Amino acid sequence: MATLQDICYSAAINLLSAIAFLFAFAMLRLQPVNDRVYFPKWYLKGIRGSPTHHGGFMKKFVNLDPRTYIRFLNWMPAALQMPEPELIEHAGLDSVVYIRIYLMGLKIFVPITLLSWAVLVPVNMTGGTLDKIKDLTYSDIDKLSISNIAENSVRFWAHAIMSYVFTFWSFYVIYHEYKAVANMRLQFLAAESRRADHFTVLVRNVPADPDESVTDHVEHFFRVNHPEHYLLHQVVYNANKLADVVEAKKAMRNWLTYYQNKYDRNPSTRPTTKTGLWGIIGTTVDAIEYYESEIEKLIKEEELEREKVLSDANAVMPAAFVSFKSRWAAAVCAQTQQSSNPTMWLTERAPEPRDVYWSNLAIPYVEHTIRKFLMAVALFFLTFFFVIPIAFVQSLATIEGIEKVFPFLKHLIEVDSVKSIVQGFLPGIALKIFLIVLPTILMLMAKIEGFHSLSSLDRRAASKYHLFLLVNVFFGSIITGTALEQLKTFMKQSASEIPQTIGVSIPMRATFFITYIMVDGWSGIAAEVLRLVPLIIFHLKNTFLVKTEQDREQAMDPGSISFPISEPRIQLYFMLGFVYAAVTPLLLPFILVFFAFAYVIFRHQIINVYDQKYESGAGYWPDVHRRLIIGQMIAQMLLMGLLNTKGAEELSPFLIPLPILTMWFHKLCKGRFESAFVKFPLQEAMVRDTLERATDPNLNLRTYLQDAYIHPVFKHDPSDKTETMIYYDEEDNPLVATKRSSKFVSDVSSGSGS
Amino acid sequence: MATLQDICYSAAINLLSAIAFLFAFAMLRLQPVNDRVYFPKWYLKGIRGSPTHHGGFMKKFVNLDPRTYIRFLNWMPAALQMPEPELIEHAGLDSVVYIRIYLMGLKIFVPITLLSWAVLVPVNMTGGTLDKIKDLTYSDIDKLSISNIAENSVRFWAHAIMSYVFTFWSFYVIYHEYKAVANMRLQFLAAESRRADHFTVLVRNVPADPDESVTDHVEHFFRVNHPEHYLLHQVVYNANKLADVVEAKKAMRNWLTYYQNKYDRNPSTRPTTKTGLWGIIGTTVDAIEYYESEIEKLIKEEELEREKVLSDANAVMPAAFVSFKSRWAAAVCAQTQQSSNPTMWLTERAPEPRDVYWSNLAIPYVEHTIRKFLMAVALFFLTFFFVIPIAFVQSLATIEGIEKVFPFLKHLIEVDSVKSIVQGFLPGIALKIFLIVLPTILMLMAKIEGFHSLSSLDRRAASKYHLFLLVNVFFGSIITGTALEQLKTFMKQSASEIPQTIGVSIPMRATFFITYIMVDGWSGIAAEVLRLVPLIIFHLKNTFLVKTEQDREQAMDPGSISFPISEPRIQLYFMLGFVYAAVTPLLLPFILVFFAFAYVIFRHQIINVYDQKYESGAGYWPDVHRRLIIGQMIAQMLLMGLLNTKGAEELSPFLIPLPILTMWFHKLCKGRFESAFVKFPLQEAMVRDTLERATDPNLNLRTYLQDAYIHPVFKHDPSDKTETMIYYDEEDNPLVATKRSSKFVSDVSSGSGS
Repeated sequence: MATLQDICYSAAINLLSAIAFLFAFAMLRLQPVNDRVYFPKWYLKGIRGSPTHHGGFMKKFVNLDPRTYIRFLNWMPAALQMPEPELIEHAGLDSVVYIRIYLMGLKIFVPITLLSWAVLVPVNMTGGTLDKIKDLTYSDIDKLSISNIAENSVRFWAHAIMSYVFTFWSFYVIYHEYKAVANMRLQFLAAESRRADHFTVLVRNVPADPDESVTDHVEHFFRVNHPEHYLLHQVVYNANKLADVVEAKKAMRNWLTYYQNKYDRNPSTRPTTKTGLWGIIGTTVDAIEYYESEIEKLIKEEELEREKVLSDANAVMPAAFVSFKSRWAAAVCAQTQQSSNPTMWLTERAPEPRDVYWSNLAIPYVEHTIRKFLMAVALFFLTFFFVIPIAFVQSLATIEGIEKVFPFLKHLIEVDSVKSIVQGFLPGIALKIFLIVLPTILMLMAKIEGFHSLSSLDRRAASKYHLFLLVNVFFGSIITGTALEQLKTFMKQSASEIPQTIGVSIPMRATFFITYIMVDGWSGIAAEVLRLVPLIIFHLKNTFLVKTEQDREQAMDPGSISFPISEPRIQLYFMLGFVYAAVTPLLLPFILVFFAFAYVIFRHQIINVYDQKYESGAGYWPDVHRRLIIGQMIAQMLLMGLLNTKGAEELSPFLIPLPILTMWFHKLCKGRFESAFVKFPLQEAMVRDTLERATDPNLNLRTYLQDAYIHPVFKHDPSDKTETMIYYDEEDNPLVATKRSSKFVSDVSSGSGS
Repeated sequence: MATLQDICYSAAINLLSAIAFLFAFAMLRLQPVNDRVYFPKWYLKGIRGSPTHHGGFMKKFVNLDPRTYIRFLNWMPAALQMPEPELIEHAGLDSVVYIRIYLMGLKIFVPITLLSWAVLVPVNMTGGTLDKIKDLTYSDIDKLSISNIAENSVRFWAHAIMSYVFTFWSFYVIYHEYKAVANMRLQFLAAESRRADHFTVLVRNVPADPDESVTDHVEHFFRVNHPEHYLLHQVVYNANKLADVVEAKKAMRNWLTYYQNKYDRNPSTRPTTKTGLWGIIGTTVDAIEYYESEIEKLIKEEELEREKVLSDANAVMPAAFVSFKSRWAAAVCAQTQQSSNPTMWLTERAPEPRDVYWSNLAIPYVEHTIRKFLMAVALFFLTFFFVIPIAFVQSLATIEGIEKVFPFLKHLIEVDSVKSIVQGFLPGIALKIFLIVLPTILMLMAKIEGFHSLSSLDRRAASKYHLFLLVNVFFGSIITGTALEQLKTFMKQSASEIPQTIGVSIPMRATFFITYIMVDGWSGIAAEVLRLVPLIIFHLKNTFLVKTEQDREQAMDPGSISFPISEPRIQLYFMLGFVYAAVTPLLLPFILVFFAFAYVIFRHQIINVYDQKYESGAGYWPDVHRRLIIGQMIAQMLLMGLLNTKGAEELSPFLIPLPILTMWFHKLCKGRFESAFVKFPLQEAMVRDTLERATDPNLNLRTYLQDAYIHPVFKHDPSDKTETMIYYDEEDNPLVATKRSSKFVSDVSSGSGS
């Protein structure tokens, strides 16, 4: 078991590495040449344009002003200065609420840490059990933990009571945070300017009709069942193949630019390439001509495919975006059941246009159910049995395995230094690679399940990742051994034994988790701010592909908060905090440092860097809340188990109400706030409709909504010379429509005024 | 363990008692004097009027026609003759779907029984294990069961495979039954004539407004947020006290009638009564005068209370029935969220007026959550710890206990014969009384939880009773010992051990359950048809209270299907069938007899006797379905446990998919059909609205809906002389209203026609 000194030593190393990252960041961000890596958000907003600094050629790339280097941490207070309302306007609600999670961590754990140190540390320190046992090696850390208390001691009451205090304090913070976020969301939605998704409903599983096309069927259905409210609709095309062609064309254009740049710099030799895989095999050809002809071909193919999609009835998927004349009508349609067959005409609030995940819109109901079922089974195996294929790869990645598969490498790897690298490094790298691709696998699984907006895909992937971390990192670290072995153990143990088995190991693993927090939390977050990968990629692109200012704009990769990865990680810290609050209070300050540090870093990032792909209005908060509750319940169970093994069984009846209360608290919060994240209340919709009719009586909603939900591939691309083709719903005579909508306005106003 | 002979003996006894009940029923039902007990449904329909038979005085009471006695079972084919559509019209969908549960039992278990006897019985019989063990007493029944197969035998594959076949066959039947019931429900709702609840929404948790009364607040809110659709509303009065007074008055009237009848028959002595408790203590007074003055007092009190309720603003509860101009608008309002605070302005489809449970309409949201939580805890304790208070009462009910509490009885109970009765009878009677009052307790708990319609109360009580039967009858009979002891055992066992512990006892308990089916199922159902308690009560009332034909009408108690008691019992039989299908096929025929017999009996009862208090359109079916799935999953787990203890562990991976598939099947059915029982699709609503506008363009909906949702205590009672007082919403000028609604009709029709 690590001593206090070990911990200090490890803390020093991690602090130093964190500071090194921060210092490197402070240096790099001041160089004008990196400006687009560290401040892309401002470029996207159009507030900042390169070059930022006037002066000579040198100054364009390197900052030579020594004064700016002195205060190398001055970005930190700057990051904290922007007030929250401004921040919401600047970065969107998703980002602001995301950093509130870190702040909530502080709100929950600062008082808990103080209380825990004030009450439990003295109780533990004077326990004196470890001093009595002579032949036991123990550290100062253990003296501060629950391990120092004798079996069956009355002192355990302190831990049980504090566990109640901690729980109630967490309830208080979590409840108010949920309330605050729900209010922020409602305000945010109310303050938003007019958006297409307010008026639009996504309709899926349009039943096939032998006599009518999908578009006619949709129109007739909604004209009949929502008369006076239906405005227009856009059918969804299966343009996946077209999107592929467009993507391929874009890649070819990049290569063409690359070779043209190369030729411009060195006009003596025309660059060549090979036609085969990745330009390394095949016949050698003139690169510029080759890519020009390829692009020509792709443009023709795109043209053909575009026509095919628009003319082929089979390319229309049984889904549509239906727009209504008012927010009220759209809210009504989204929340009600249309048909007596509940698997047909499924309606829901349309995601905002950039949030739509187009490929999944056509999945029929039963297939959806089967996909979900299969993915649930797959997730179970992935979580509990992922070790098996990795162990298999690892067994191949030994010296003998490599010699068998690649005999020509035999002489090379027999060299001692290479051998030791292979033996020490290769087995670990298989696991590392798996963990790096894991979020991608989970996202792929979410996509297979058939969710049809990016935000729901992110949320789903986050749930899966949370389960994985819980089983393999948290429980996996406490009970050493693979998840598979854990599962076997648990299957053989009784319901009351499982918390005991885990609980008894908890105090022993405190030092491990402290180190984990420092490595993953402190240094990991500091590495986040440095953005090493985007930095390198930007400079590579800048060197080889950028010709115009516009190209440079495209080479910029602001990135975004990777919610499916980061949020489950925060939850791990929350759970560690809940679990160790009553067991090893020493761990809490490390978590506090993590939350505070991460809060500042991410606040800086959302101000200066990230550009979110969509805005869900903090729609993920119910998930965050649920996972907090899961963390609390696990902590309560484990404390009960731990106290049981310590001979304090009489405390069990006292502690049993805790998880029940927590469950009830969850239900209360869910009932109280969740619908703010799921439904759009009619009252709000009516207020906004009335306001809009008063302020903008001549609004032509039809023109506004006509092109809102068109597959991005049909939209006009400024870098593209091809004509934009937008599909208009020809059937609607604009004259009739205008008349009808104005009549509707007068109807509603006379109705509400009477 | 019982032998085949024991079973035959028991079967003979139960069959004889069932036949005796049926014979008694056949005799009694032919007597004209019992006509109102056995055919009340026809009286209520107005088709039958007493006396049915012409002839002398004697013939009015006793049927002297010998021919009618010969075919004493001829009611059975008669019960089966009425075709289903006619039956739905005659008895309502709730009753018809209820008897379909029995029919579904036959559909599921007839093929399973045949298969099981064709495949598993031969496999078991030739197992030959029991023959080899010389010193084991076994019966022929055991030779037919899985016990006869040797450990680790390859024959267990037959059981595992048959378990899949049984599961898939059940899936097939259950799926099609769900589909059929959903269709029947939709057809039933579509065929219904105009009903007030189609146009009405129950609004609860109207927020308090300091400036407005509840009624104004409701009107303004819905006029603003559902303009063009809002028609009128009725607030809910807290008339619980008034209802009590009216109830008390009715009881007094009954006593007055009783004494007046007594005086009429024997005019020589005026009847007297005592003023104290139940008329047995207190001062003696003239009965007729006493009750007349009491009724006088109560009438005054009622008058006062009535005025108080109608004038006092505090008597108005924060709930209202809001009616709309179309079914479409009501469906929209019921399915959408009104306010951004999801605990305010809660809307739902109004239950039909006679289904409303008035006392629960005013419970605020948070209190609702707390009540549910408390009742969940209470149900847990009731299920697992109900033995404790009963054991306490039983300990008092011993000879010593009685002698201690009632010393004066000492001499009496020391007599040997009395002593043996006390010892043998009293301890059991405490349990029996508890089991008789249990449904009442569960219904009370459901009422405390705050459900606001009789149908939802019934469904909720049924869920609770099902849990109780599952734990205390099913598991309690398999593992002898109280539920409390079971709970202790299970807490100490691992998740994989529990099914083994139970599974291993299953074949041994087969004979017990066969006897249970015969006593509870066969004889119990036969007793149901006899209606002994209503028979006695009717004749008592008829003798003492009935003066006019109208009184006789009121003395009739048709009763209704007691869904919260009967449905969970059927589920117990389903579960026994699922569990024993693969273990002891001998049990299945007994279940088949039960289902067939109960089907005929209940079909007769719903045709001739029961008068349902409300009509929910088979709204309980999702519950029935869920419990069937629970039964299947328990059966699958137990089979797995049983096979594990038999050394057939290699079958576990083969059987594990079964419960997972069952879970998935449940989700599929739920998604596919459940919303038909929860929501009212807009398409249906629109079709009915359009149809009604075409067929009945001059309908005055306002008049139709005005008094629909008035507390029954304000409604005109034909036996009451007090003036009916109905509260009219004075604010609405009928002239304006008519104009507005006619305008709406023209708007909608022009809108849908365009």
